Amino acid sequence: MSRFFTDKYSKLVPYTPGEQPKDMNYIKLNTNESPFPPSSEVSEAVKNEANKLQLYCDPVCTELTSKIAELHNVDFNEVLATNGSDEILNFAFMAFCDQNNPIVFADITYGFYSVFADLNNIPYEIIPLKDDFSIDINDYIGINKNIVIANPNAPTGKYLEKADIEKIVSSNPNNIVIIDEAYIDFGGESASTLIHKYDNLLVTGTFSKSRSLAGGRLGFGIGNKDLIADLNTIKYSTNPYNVNRLTQIAGVKALENNGYYMNNCKTIIKNREYTEKALDDLGFYVIPSKANFVFAKCDKIDGGELYKKLKAKGILVRHFTKERIKDYNRITIGTMEQMEALIAAIKEIFKEAGI
Amino acid sequence: MSRFFTDKYSKLVPYTPGEQPKDMNYIKLNTNESPFPPSSEVSEAVKNEANKLQLYCDPVCTELTSKIAELHNVDFNEVLATNGSDEILNFAFMAFCDQNNPIVFADITYGFYSVFADLNNIPYEIIPLKDDFSIDINDYIGINKNIVIANPNAPTGKYLEKADIEKIVSSNPNNIVIIDEAYIDFGGESASTLIHKYDNLLVTGTFSKSRSLAGGRLGFGIGNKDLIADLNTIKYSTNPYNVNRLTQIAGVKALENNGYYMNNCKTIIKNREYTEKALDDLGFYVIPSKANFVFAKCDKIDGGELYKKLKAKGILVRHFTKERIKDYNRITIGTMEQMEALIAAIKEIFKEAGI
Repeated sequence: MSRFFTDKYSKLVPYTPGEQPKDMNYIKLNTNESPFPPSSEVSEAVKNEANKLQLYCDPVCTELTSKIAELHNVDFNEVLATNGSDEILNFAFMAFCDQNNPIVFADITYGFYSVFADLNNIPYEIIPLKDDFSIDINDYIGINKNIVIANPNAPTGKYLEKADIEKIVSSNPNNIVIIDEAYIDFGGESASTLIHKYDNLLVTGTFSKSRSLAGGRLGFGIGNKDLIADLNTIKYSTNPYNVNRLTQIAGVKALENNGYYMNNCKTIIKNREYTEKALDDLGFYVIPSKANFVFAKCDKIDGGELYKKLKAKGILVRHFTKERIKDYNRITIGTMEQMEALIAAIKEIFKEAGI
Repeated sequence: MSRFFTDKYSKLVPYTPGEQPKDMNYIKLNTNESPFPPSSEVSEAVKNEANKLQLYCDPVCTELTSKIAELHNVDFNEVLATNGSDEILNFAFMAFCDQNNPIVFADITYGFYSVFADLNNIPYEIIPLKDDFSIDINDYIGINKNIVIANPNAPTGKYLEKADIEKIVSSNPNNIVIIDEAYIDFGGESASTLIHKYDNLLVTGTFSKSRSLAGGRLGFGIGNKDLIADLNTIKYSTNPYNVNRLTQIAGVKALENNGYYMNNCKTIIKNREYTEKALDDLGFYVIPSKANFVFAKCDKIDGGELYKKLKAKGILVRHFTKERIKDYNRITIGTMEQMEALIAAIKEIFKEAGI
């Protein structure tokens, strides 16, 4: 830390991204990326667009925003595209929370929420999930505080039905409810259409998972036009050209080739079912998932130990050291070959350990 | 504005980007873009990289950071790459300024500085430039406040010698001095090597102008490793994957093809000289520029009027309504053909107006 760093950030503990070791060629099941590349039109479009990179991008992201709006059946001015969904989440924390407007979220959820709160000096309250890691919606009914819920949740994969989301939103009419739908395309139903009924709902999404654009950084928010206008005030006071030209066109193509991506999601769901069953057969407890990952533990082996042994065998999964979930590993669902390799590696580990 | 927008941002006046009208095909001399496309290797590299977009980008920007460090003859941990230089500037305002650490800047300079200050609730003081729009360095010697200076300045193009920058930096050892070098490659000398002598200096740069990547969004900061560590704390608490995969590789290629870009800068300087002379011949007062634009006025025609008439003829320049500079237009230096078209259009306008 330098002697110039402002006091207000001096105690900030930043978010830790998933590891990206380069010592060998790993099977990466640790950051919930898609195992499928973008559609072929994406690379061709991106190449052509590269010849126009000397020109600023469209700050409004006109074409991309139109297409996101169309997909979600909302209006153009009810959508804001951002540099990954981390950006829209940070903008939302900035725009709608402050010392007098705290935010609540689950104890086990996306680790960035508390960082955004700390960054923006926002008080927050943590509501523990039930023993089975599900949300007790009664904890959120009429609490009169801003709320952020990842649905499906990470790292558990647990899904909350749209009807339950609606109960939470409708019972807190004077507070913002953010539904972070990073993983919605793997079996869940988006709450985005509810924005026409509730002016306090902001739904966020990303192209990182179901649309194979983690490296392109593209997220978005959907909400009442006045909420989007506020978020635009933040955007234009921070980084007006936040989504670059190449990512804008990649996003447009990803939406034009929707069928390709939705097929990939179906494959992921099938591979998830295979993985859940195979892990179950090996004696794992697997939380039912609606995401592109599963969260699993096995009484026969320590969570951190399994993570290390898999890494030694060239397979990366994500292990969190937090007390309540330290027995678990979060395993991204990849191709069938990758999942078979995972299961084979676990069998080997069990054999080597005499389990 | 929604009923949920936090009070602290409710009076925020966002930055206004240069216009991008789509009603006709303009000669764009209004946003200081390069008239030259990126080198051919950029589009090929970007196309290949598009096939890996399903994977997160390297949050450290390892290869890109190395190459920026090499170019500036500094260490890897003295560089931070960002989503455009607006992002590094905002991070710096966040990290080093607060209620007790105000910032000062010129009355006529990049319009975003006051927005960043307002966004982050930072008091600021405005120091008027001299009558000829140059900085009086005595205004900045030992003032014991954080300072941001665009060098060359925008929209004037005025350049401050490195020796003068050093006097300002050395006389304010307990405050951060940010030198925003967006336009340094068009005839100026970077202050970046001074970071080894002064731990209070942060130099920022961009690939938008001299490296033809305005649409790619790539900026960077260079400073003492402790300053960079602080800026990384902000980055990892905001958006760890801030520079996407395509922009990272585009930046790497842009640095590998340095000769191409430096040649383009020479062409721009040559075209600037032509433009300065031609405008002078037409009776304009042109401020001597070290940037890829000139700032010029003519007693024979109102600044706003000239802007409008040029636009009607398909040429966009940038006009600011601020009282002190409303007589001027900022004209980006493009290709020789574009500059000839500009001069021809001004001659036509003069003729039509009987000037």
